[in-house]
Amino acid sequence: MAESINRQILFASHPEGEPRPENFQYAETPVPEPGPGELLLRNKYLSLDPYMRGRMSTAKSYAKGFELGRPLGGGTVSEVVASNNSKFAPGDLVQAMGGWQDFALSSGEGLMKIDPTIAPVTTALGVLGMPGMTAYTGLASIGQPKPGETLVVAAAAGPVGSTVGQIAKIKGCRVVGIAAANKLGFLKDELGFDMALDRRSPSLKDELREACPNGIDVYFENVGGAVWDAVMPLLNDFARIPVCGLIAHYNDTQVPPGPDRLPQLMRMTLTKRLRIQGFIVWDFREQLPDFLRDVGAWLREGKIKYREDIVEGLEKAPEAFIGLLKGENFGKLIVKIAD
Amino acid sequence: MAESINRQILFASHPEGEPRPENFQYAETPVPEPGPGELLLRNKYLSLDPYMRGRMSTAKSYAKGFELGRPLGGGTVSEVVASNNSKFAPGDLVQAMGGWQDFALSSGEGLMKIDPTIAPVTTALGVLGMPGMTAYTGLASIGQPKPGETLVVAAAAGPVGSTVGQIAKIKGCRVVGIAAANKLGFLKDELGFDMALDRRSPSLKDELREACPNGIDVYFENVGGAVWDAVMPLLNDFARIPVCGLIAHYNDTQVPPGPDRLPQLMRMTLTKRLRIQGFIVWDFREQLPDFLRDVGAWLREGKIKYREDIVEGLEKAPEAFIGLLKGENFGKLIVKIAD
Repeated sequence: MAESINRQILFASHPEGEPRPENFQYAETPVPEPGPGELLLRNKYLSLDPYMRGRMSTAKSYAKGFELGRPLGGGTVSEVVASNNSKFAPGDLVQAMGGWQDFALSSGEGLMKIDPTIAPVTTALGVLGMPGMTAYTGLASIGQPKPGETLVVAAAAGPVGSTVGQIAKIKGCRVVGIAAANKLGFLKDELGFDMALDRRSPSLKDELREACPNGIDVYFENVGGAVWDAVMPLLNDFARIPVCGLIAHYNDTQVPPGPDRLPQLMRMTLTKRLRIQGFIVWDFREQLPDFLRDVGAWLREGKIKYREDIVEGLEKAPEAFIGLLKGENFGKLIVKIAD
Repeated sequence: MAESINRQILFASHPEGEPRPENFQYAETPVPEPGPGELLLRNKYLSLDPYMRGRMSTAKSYAKGFELGRPLGGGTVSEVVASNNSKFAPGDLVQAMGGWQDFALSSGEGLMKIDPTIAPVTTALGVLGMPGMTAYTGLASIGQPKPGETLVVAAAAGPVGSTVGQIAKIKGCRVVGIAAANKLGFLKDELGFDMALDRRSPSLKDELREACPNGIDVYFENVGGAVWDAVMPLLNDFARIPVCGLIAHYNDTQVPPGPDRLPQLMRMTLTKRLRIQGFIVWDFREQLPDFLRDVGAWLREGKIKYREDIVEGLEKAPEAFIGLLKGENFGKLIVKIAD
């Protein structure tokens, strides 16, 4: 590798509400040297994901927040360029947490080798990576879709939502997806969803009611906000709600005005015997082999499709991430850092 | 039986907020005649339970509401006084849904014979009946208490709460009960709870925090209101919340003012990976043999104790029920209808 500088996007300041360009800072540092047992990774693709907004917050969450003045973290497809670790050789492609930068050091821990002959390497950041496994494990462990049931998912054209919907179709469900207007054709024509609704429609509540004549048995929650408001009255007895994201609320800066609907939700939980359960993908890490086997097979058989939205150039990452939180991407958002 | 009239308490009108005496009406009707295959039951003990408030409401719930002009429904310990059903003979004691009246007809369906040599027959309405099974199944299926964990339960001197706490002690938990001030000694001295807190204390939040130095892993929700508000900030990652009742809200007539804490609860569900799940005891009816085996054994071994609050006379049922919703009873509330 001829490069001698490591371009980085640093976490410059905590955003209030929507992240803005000044929360990020471009920097150039020397390429680090791997120490004993370490690897030097060249990041080729960087995954941008909604969870990152949570790590930019000062609020307590399940994961440690990003550190100010350091490169933001994130999943990458990376190539080993130097190795002091016998398990990895230069040229190996790995899934890593390489972060928003050209180069990263790694102890080797947590790295997964990628076989580029199975599927395009970028799928390791999407349908065969964290988003796909989020969809798979949330359904397997909490959603438990059964034939004939109705499943609703929002952000339905994204890497999690699209996989959720397609797995539910495989399981025999009626699937209703909610997404931006320009993505509805994709959901119905490409992914085979039964119905696709415009998330910004002022009559979303009525449209959802019509799209779910038998109520809702599984609502895969990755959005919150107006979609959850529309879903709640339609939930059937014994509905399951895996909660994996609340992108509509990540930029919230204050508690919304009343009335206070918390007691109403608890009462509905009781009378409808709902199961509302939060999770993150690593809570179910023991399901990784099942996930790779099942989703890998469905992908090969053409039962699961995916779409990627690839942005060229590390320097575009902040802008692309800001757009992600507004739903401007179409498919799994990935930044191509290097060939 | 010499009696020829059937005293009944009829459901006279839907309460707004707290039930009042005029929502009930005393009536005398002829003792009914059992038809082919039917039994005539003499109700001896009537169970009064918080769920009945829900059935007096016009709101949709898991069970059909009580019918105006008809006797209110409820679990009873009853004696078979006439039988056209070969499965039951006069003199048999059964657990039935005999309702707020002296006599009831039954097809025999759903009746369970009671062996009075095992335990006092009234336990069929309490620790060995629906409340005990509610505690047992909610913990077995949702709460899943583990040794060293902290469990909190309110209405802790009641038949559900006291059984929840004692089972959690058997499972090796630290148990904190919340109840009226006059019941705290009972929880600590009789039932062996680790801590007992006054539900009306203005500093309940601080007291609960001190009582749960390692946070809360299981909150058995049968109350809602101020207790849930105090519990929420203390919930640990992966906490389980079986929701079996919300007595603090049963008399609510309007939605409380803001701010709207619903998004906050969903966010907490995500970041702490909470499992919040509503249930009623019959959702887990297949666990009845396990329940009778385990709780029966714990009762015999003295590991589970119970307390009853027996009111004499059917005509006292409305007043006793109104008091129940205010927490005025101390132990399982039962109306003795006949010897």
